[in-house]
Amino acid sequence: MTMDMMKGAMSSSEMPMDGMDPMMMQECLEALSACMQACVMCADADAAEGMGRCASMCSNCADVCDAMMRMMLRTRGWDMAVMMSMMQATATTARACSAECMMHAEMSEHCRMCAMACDQLVTTMEKMSGMMRDAMPMG
Amino acid sequence: MTMDMMKGAMSSSEMPMDGMDPMMMQECLEALSACMQACVMCADADAAEGMGRCASMCSNCADVCDAMMRMMLRTRGWDMAVMMSMMQATATTARACSAECMMHAEMSEHCRMCAMACDQLVTTMEKMSGMMRDAMPMG
Amino acid sequence: MTMDMMKGAMSSSEMPMDGMDPMMMQECLEALSACMQACVMCADADAAEGMGRCASMCSNCADVCDAMMRMMLRTRGWDMAVMMSMMQATATTARACSAECMMHAEMSEHCRMCAMACDQLVTTMEKMSGMMRDAMPMG
Amino acid sequence: MTMDMMKGAMSSSEMPMDGMDPMMMQECLEALSACMQACVMCADADAAEGMGRCASMCSNCADVCDAMMRMMLRTRGWDMAVMMSMMQATATTARACSAECMMHAEMSEHCRMCAMACDQLVTTMEKMSGMMRDAMPMG
Repeated sequence: MTMDMMKGAMSSSEMPMDGMDPMMMQECLEALSACMQACVMCADADAAEGMGRCASMCSNCADVCDAMMRMMLRTRGWDMAVMMSMMQATATTARACSAECMMHAEMSEHCRMCAMACDQLVTTMEKMSGMMRDAMPMG
Repeated sequence: MTMDMMKGAMSSSEMPMDGMDPMMMQECLEALSACMQACVMCADADAAEGMGRCASMCSNCADVCDAMMRMMLRTRGWDMAVMMSMMQATATTARACSAECMMHAEMSEHCRMCAMACDQLVTTMEKMSGMMRDAMPMG
Repeated sequence: MTMDMMKGAMSSSEMPMDGMDPMMMQECLEALSACMQACVMCADADAAEGMGRCASMCSNCADVCDAMMRMMLRTRGWDMAVMMSMMQATATTARACSAECMMHAEMSEHCRMCAMACDQLVTTMEKMSGMMRDAMPMG
Repeated sequence: MTMDMMKGAMSSSEMPMDGMDPMMMQECLEALSACMQACVMCADADAAEGMGRCASMCSNCADVCDAMMRMMLRTRGWDMAVMMSMMQATATTARACSAECMMHAEMSEHCRMCAMACDQLVTTMEKMSGMMRDAMPMG
């Protein structure tokens, strides 16, 4: 349903949409949602195990994913500079979270799965940034 | 992946889990996620059409869904009174949002779809509340 | 500044406002903001100390405060049933968070301060609920 | 109270803290909180007036402020690259929001006040970024 609504909404955006496609948007939303959920659960488990830095970084990543997801869903407010800076912040946050989680991935299954979700998100954000940059009219 | 992590996490909860099952949890998370996304998109479209009350109620519903979703994912902090009051607040908010959206569902496709997502969430929250109440030890 | 904007916004609400006053609204917003910040910091500290249940309940309380605060700020969407159910959920969540924090308030300064912020919020939510109930036209 | 908790928490951070001070942290938290509240109220008012793009950009800015604020409060997870990228994204988002609001600041008091809160936040984020960069050990 999200994508049916999204297709209608994308036609109302002021941002140049050449090169953007709903499939890529769906991939982003799914990666953000999966990463957000994995990070909330990982932070919850970390806290019970005294892994304070991991809990903190996972909580940060969950919050950034949430903000990024909402920003993508609000097509009327799309702005190239804003989207690019937030996609970069999201990728940077997810990369750091993954690195922290990987330090205890062998003993902690939730960290291993959370790191996977973060890595997937980094890949997706980079792909999306690339597509948006290519779609941008020469400045 | 969320559900693989969830199964491990549910075994660590302090709340009595008889009668709860991961399938029901998954249904809740999906309904919350779908409703949150529909509400953010509907609010965005409403605003461009000057439907201020609908935009406001959809934004509220999105925020409540977000808080409820995170609460469900944090199994270590589950507490019966807290969960019941938030599930009730979520159902009340989604019901009001659906009622508002239905007033302009005929002319506005995003409102029609958002109302459907809200109704689905109300049903899911009521089912989950019932299961949790039944699973509760006599007091 | 928030209150200057709020006064203008309150005059646009559809909800009956007799008995409501901007001072009470400001008190709510401040209690919600203080509790949210205290809970995020307490959860962060708890996690480093392995206090998993406290971290989880504080994180929940922070999220509920956030949703409640935004709902209060959106005067166009005010709805009595929605506001009452969310104020009740907020009070219930903050009360449970305070109870958990008080269990380790003697050894943990952040828990003691977080419990104080939660207690203050419970009092404020109950006062606001009472005022809104009194202001409600007979049904 | 936030700052009393913050001082204790800052001593537990792994990030080099030379050059950072609690006063600067407080300034950031206040600017983020004020901007978040102004943006939620401005978006609510915009929607009722059919200013779709402004509502959307204000909602984005509110969400980014929220994530940035929580990240600042979680001292255990501080990471230089993550903080710098999020402060930059926050400044970029607030700058774009201010520019949009300024287009209708003459006819709309809430837009004028929201733009002021955004501008204040941009200044604060830039000051904080500069201090963190200076405090960073040579790499």
